[in-house]
Amino acid sequence: MARAALRALTCASLLAVSVAWAADDRPLAERLLAEELRTRGAWQRLAHLTDRIGPRLSGSAGERAAVQWAAETLTADGFSVRREPVTVPHWVRGEEQAEVIAPAHRLVVTALGGSVGTPPHGVEAEVVVADGLDDLERLGESVQGRIVLFNRAMTNDDSPAAFRAYRDAATQRTRGPSAAARKGAVAVLVRSLGTLSARLPHTGATRYDADAPQVPAAAITAEDADLLARLVASGTLPRVRLRLGCRTLEDVPSANVVADLVGGERPDEVVLIAAHLDSWDLGTGAHDDGAGVAMVMESLRLLKGLGRPPRRTIRAVLYANEENGLAGARAYAAAHAGELTRHVAALETDSGAFVPLGFRAWVGPGGVERLGEMVQALAGLGATRITPATEVGADIGPLKPAGVPLLGLDVDGRQYFHWHHTPADTLDKVDPELLAKDAVVLATMAWMLAEAPEPLPRPSPPPPSPSPSPAAAPALPR
Amino acid sequence: MARAALRALTCASLLAVSVAWAADDRPLAERLLAEELRTRGAWQRLAHLTDRIGPRLSGSAGERAAVQWAAETLTADGFSVRREPVTVPHWVRGEEQAEVIAPAHRLVVTALGGSVGTPPHGVEAEVVVADGLDDLERLGESVQGRIVLFNRAMTNDDSPAAFRAYRDAATQRTRGPSAAARKGAVAVLVRSLGTLSARLPHTGATRYDADAPQVPAAAITAEDADLLARLVASGTLPRVRLRLGCRTLEDVPSANVVADLVGGERPDEVVLIAAHLDSWDLGTGAHDDGAGVAMVMESLRLLKGLGRPPRRTIRAVLYANEENGLAGARAYAAAHAGELTRHVAALETDSGAFVPLGFRAWVGPGGVERLGEMVQALAGLGATRITPATEVGADIGPLKPAGVPLLGLDVDGRQYFHWHHTPADTLDKVDPELLAKDAVVLATMAWMLAEAPEPLPRPSPPPPSPSPSPAAAPALPR
Repeated sequence: MARAALRALTCASLLAVSVAWAADDRPLAERLLAEELRTRGAWQRLAHLTDRIGPRLSGSAGERAAVQWAAETLTADGFSVRREPVTVPHWVRGEEQAEVIAPAHRLVVTALGGSVGTPPHGVEAEVVVADGLDDLERLGESVQGRIVLFNRAMTNDDSPAAFRAYRDAATQRTRGPSAAARKGAVAVLVRSLGTLSARLPHTGATRYDADAPQVPAAAITAEDADLLARLVASGTLPRVRLRLGCRTLEDVPSANVVADLVGGERPDEVVLIAAHLDSWDLGTGAHDDGAGVAMVMESLRLLKGLGRPPRRTIRAVLYANEENGLAGARAYAAAHAGELTRHVAALETDSGAFVPLGFRAWVGPGGVERLGEMVQALAGLGATRITPATEVGADIGPLKPAGVPLLGLDVDGRQYFHWHHTPADTLDKVDPELLAKDAVVLATMAWMLAEAPEPLPRPSPPPPSPSPSPAAAPALPR
Repeated sequence: MARAALRALTCASLLAVSVAWAADDRPLAERLLAEELRTRGAWQRLAHLTDRIGPRLSGSAGERAAVQWAAETLTADGFSVRREPVTVPHWVRGEEQAEVIAPAHRLVVTALGGSVGTPPHGVEAEVVVADGLDDLERLGESVQGRIVLFNRAMTNDDSPAAFRAYRDAATQRTRGPSAAARKGAVAVLVRSLGTLSARLPHTGATRYDADAPQVPAAAITAEDADLLARLVASGTLPRVRLRLGCRTLEDVPSANVVADLVGGERPDEVVLIAAHLDSWDLGTGAHDDGAGVAMVMESLRLLKGLGRPPRRTIRAVLYANEENGLAGARAYAAAHAGELTRHVAALETDSGAFVPLGFRAWVGPGGVERLGEMVQALAGLGATRITPATEVGADIGPLKPAGVPLLGLDVDGRQYFHWHHTPADTLDKVDPELLAKDAVVLATMAWMLAEAPEPLPRPSPPPPSPSPSPAAAPALPR
């Protein structure tokens, strides 16, 4: 899009939804899309969030500003807003540096979220290479005193495969550091989980097991991982020096931002629409998950503009701390435990703003068919695919034990992992028109679920997890 | 290409060219290609240069190692090698950092080659935006005391247009800092000259005019330039703090590496084939110009393998200091001034290893037609395009006053400026098969020119430049 046009969009003020529009008798999705393409409300929100607030990692000033802005904006849109308290981790990145000693190469490196730092002079050791978590065993004693590079690459296939490839490869990032430390590794490097090699480091959360030493852990670029692998393959183990200044400070208070479009007939029955307000610190979290935040806020505004309340309440939840803890998701589930049987559905959008495809869904018997009929209303937007899934979204995951039907906005995510968790997850990567369409798909589905005579069939809750607490094994953040 | 295969290529040792192959009676290009695809000699050289030596900016240890390696490798290939002395600048990058104060954003920044540093605490000022060098005038007094962002974007068109777009936009990088400083700017930022927005900074040389204050100058990414432009367009000038630790040390001795495949009949007539051995410091200079170095070295090896000398001498020149000074190019022209009338052609390759298209050519009357007939021998490789040009190559540019016919290997460079001068100009971006084809196109053309009964018609030297010396206005490095 031309820069001039983009500028105009960013600067234009949101015009109030006109009454004439509300009286329109076109199909709902079509009406909402016309209004969204006219006002570009989702785009304006995303532009503000990314340009004016920027990165918003849990515990940072950016996160506080984002909570403030979201609450004020939803209030200005005419909603009664609650900031529900969440205690979030406060991890800070600090300086970071890595280099191969000989042959001399500077590596492009970024600490994994939650990693401990190195001593000020760094950690220096030879590198051994594992092709993913499963390959660690093969390395045997050679891990001792060394830096392990987990070098499993993501494949770049079509959209659902991309997310699956990410989940498969991500185990080396989430569980690799403790696994390697148990075998005597002094630090861990992980090949960036991504689908474009542009010397971009992809950060992301790791977690330490209680029974393993906490070793520094960082992502390096695909190019640097390939270089190290070639050097190792040629017969000499390269020595790498890694310096990380990251550390974990005291937890801080934050909030989930919650706003209701109150139902006219069954206000205590809730259709939840959700995204996460926090982001990683490297980029401005435009796709992840600024786009989702914009869709959710704009859905509420668009639906309020219809001029009459839905039968059930539509609730926007902008979660805190999805990226490195899921504290917001757990706090919401705990605070609203008594109401979850009356949560008739929860919709999450956290896969970026791309061509809308439909929804992934975790629903009870007959639910997929019901949804299949409903999404015919989205045929004009091409979003008619319902894909049964058990892992639908990280933030709505904690609603599973209560049997809340879960839906995730499904998009053509082939480019999502080009930018995911990198410095390049920025506004220019988002197409304003696709963002508008995604917002309308989300809004329309929320409205249909809130209006439906019968709620979706509820799925059976999964058996209790064998892990001691949700904190020990959170659903994998996207 | 699969990593395993790549590894195998890197490790395999170069087999000697077999005598049986030399007796082959297939057309030359076909024979050379078969040999090159069998041995992958160009690829092995490029892999060594980028993996084992890495970045090689003038004056650095990497540059010294590259000169040493190139000379030893050509010697091992059976050539008598000269290291012809060149005095090169020694500019070092140091730490670099830039940020928007409010709204807080960290910018991805890299100093322009040759820039002065900032004071240790940095330079802090408001930013004004110029759409390229020509737009500076419009800003008038507002430049005073401010940082000027030159924000002209490169368009991404087809190959010749990409190089033209680069040359057009590059004036803001080469001449912007002095132009802005004359109007009172305290520092200059330049939008990275590139065709992919992946938060990659593109460095490159700048130069200071004698009549202007020397202000710090750096490139920022396309994303960051867009951000600043949006903030400025919204009505408030963002304050930016820039810290650059770069500085220029004493000049150091370096060398052009020169090796001859001596002609059998007219040894004093020379067909020169050239690339530059230095690179920027951010990546490993795989496309720019490691690929060219590999093509030139491999051309000499392949042609020696033919088993008989060419009529004229084919001379490989690996130039020093193309990126930030062209000292190698000027030193060669000066040291060989007496022989240049017997240089029958000079071929440069400095556009990366992509699909070969043909040659750009600066030749005398009838020369383009002659070349058009000759390149029919390259039809199997698709390299039959002869494009008349006046700017053929930076390193062979100083041969123009002597009327040496100049040829530049022309490739489909649509992706060249994705990676050019960035940290991502790395080995994985080079396709081994295309590198092999390019090497063969270069070798075949050099052989044909060395064998031709009559040399190419010589062009008329351009009128003497009005600039006081070549040093003041070097041809634009690629």
